[in-house]
Amino acid sequence: MTQRLPPKDQLIMGLHALQELLRHAPSRLLRVYTSRGEGRGDARKEGVLQSCKKEGVPIEVVSESFLDKICGSDSHQSFAAHVKGRKYYSVKEFLKTVENEENCLVLMCDQIFDPQNFGALLRTAECLGVSGVVWSKNRGSDLTPVAAKASSGASEWIPLIRVSNLAESVREFQNHGFEAIASAFTSDAENAFSFQFPPKTVLILGSEGEGIQPLILKMADRKIMIPMQGRIHSLSVVQAAASFLTCYQIKQII
Amino acid sequence: MTQRLPPKDQLIMGLHALQELLRHAPSRLLRVYTSRGEGRGDARKEGVLQSCKKEGVPIEVVSESFLDKICGSDSHQSFAAHVKGRKYYSVKEFLKTVENEENCLVLMCDQIFDPQNFGALLRTAECLGVSGVVWSKNRGSDLTPVAAKASSGASEWIPLIRVSNLAESVREFQNHGFEAIASAFTSDAENAFSFQFPPKTVLILGSEGEGIQPLILKMADRKIMIPMQGRIHSLSVVQAAASFLTCYQIKQII
Repeated sequence: MTQRLPPKDQLIMGLHALQELLRHAPSRLLRVYTSRGEGRGDARKEGVLQSCKKEGVPIEVVSESFLDKICGSDSHQSFAAHVKGRKYYSVKEFLKTVENEENCLVLMCDQIFDPQNFGALLRTAECLGVSGVVWSKNRGSDLTPVAAKASSGASEWIPLIRVSNLAESVREFQNHGFEAIASAFTSDAENAFSFQFPPKTVLILGSEGEGIQPLILKMADRKIMIPMQGRIHSLSVVQAAASFLTCYQIKQII
Repeated sequence: MTQRLPPKDQLIMGLHALQELLRHAPSRLLRVYTSRGEGRGDARKEGVLQSCKKEGVPIEVVSESFLDKICGSDSHQSFAAHVKGRKYYSVKEFLKTVENEENCLVLMCDQIFDPQNFGALLRTAECLGVSGVVWSKNRGSDLTPVAAKASSGASEWIPLIRVSNLAESVREFQNHGFEAIASAFTSDAENAFSFQFPPKTVLILGSEGEGIQPLILKMADRKIMIPMQGRIHSLSVVQAAASFLTCYQIKQII
């Protein structure tokens, strides 16, 4: 059993995540951990092991409990992998990559502490045209194996802007022509369905329980809300993200 | 410990679901089961017990493992409740309730076997203006405690159309002026962002793994897809639902 444990944000887990990397960026795989305990002979698992061998990725056979421990979860399907450190952008670096874009949509996650939700937000963002995701690991989940798995591969593709101070980041985006649009059920929040998004938008979402920090909310240029049609008045933050991002995309084509 | 176990679809679990019912429809609560084991003295839990007493709902103290068993999950937060049987509509009954509506959006779930996803779909549907949800428990999850909890209360409010044959139901809606619009990544699928939804729409969604049954897909009048902007090409069915329903709602107001 290995002694050098990779840092949490250099671990991925699950078959799908592993297959995605084998297909698109096998050179990022440093080592695969598998218990092979359950489901030996399962064609999909065998296929993954074959591909690892073909790509020259070292395979280490470990116990299920070792996988549980390094992943912080038992949803690893007997597979985890140590991957090369991801590129994290500073706001400044990110802004350089999009300086020639006329339209740019950035998602900022505030107080999303649930790694499952954080991962699902990365997935939604990647599919629905977000250019980068900003978050602070002091005010939210880190990119753990659980988050990476929930992102369904998106964590490996979408530009990640991990910052230490969200308020400073909002200001930096605003200084570069972005408007900060916060999701909030306040009396001055506008209807997202008819909202004219600015071409350069930082969309700020908070957690279901705690919302957006007051300081960040105060910095927002405008606020939007999804008009609730029914009685329960509460989409999850991931469902809300899918709705907001769809609003933005539709406004780009009409 | 009680001997008469309520049927799965007459059980709800979790504090939020219980609070919702206490607030809006306490008369539907027949009996509350609680282990009170963990977190005794927790203000929220005590509040729920107080409200039950005030409303005259019998409280039965049971073991955690009993709750695990009847709920089929350990996410019950030490609370479950037996609720009055929900009203299930037939397609015919449902159509009668909306016969004077010019616009009507119905969600059909095909092969959504994961109760978590099914519940989250009910939640998304209730918040985003769906008039009723059609599904077959032969081809999908039943409304289990897990599904009810994931629905965040929506299962108690949105009209539920539980049928035995989805294909027949599609035909019945079509015979009453509805068009069946299926989500599919086929070559003839139209872009959901620019799609002109018919005023009476049955939106059909399939599971992530299996999609929509070929027979149902064949019956669809038109197909739509969310244009994927990134590389991973896969929103979850719940994220996709939030996006499709937003498309429909935006088209209603522009």
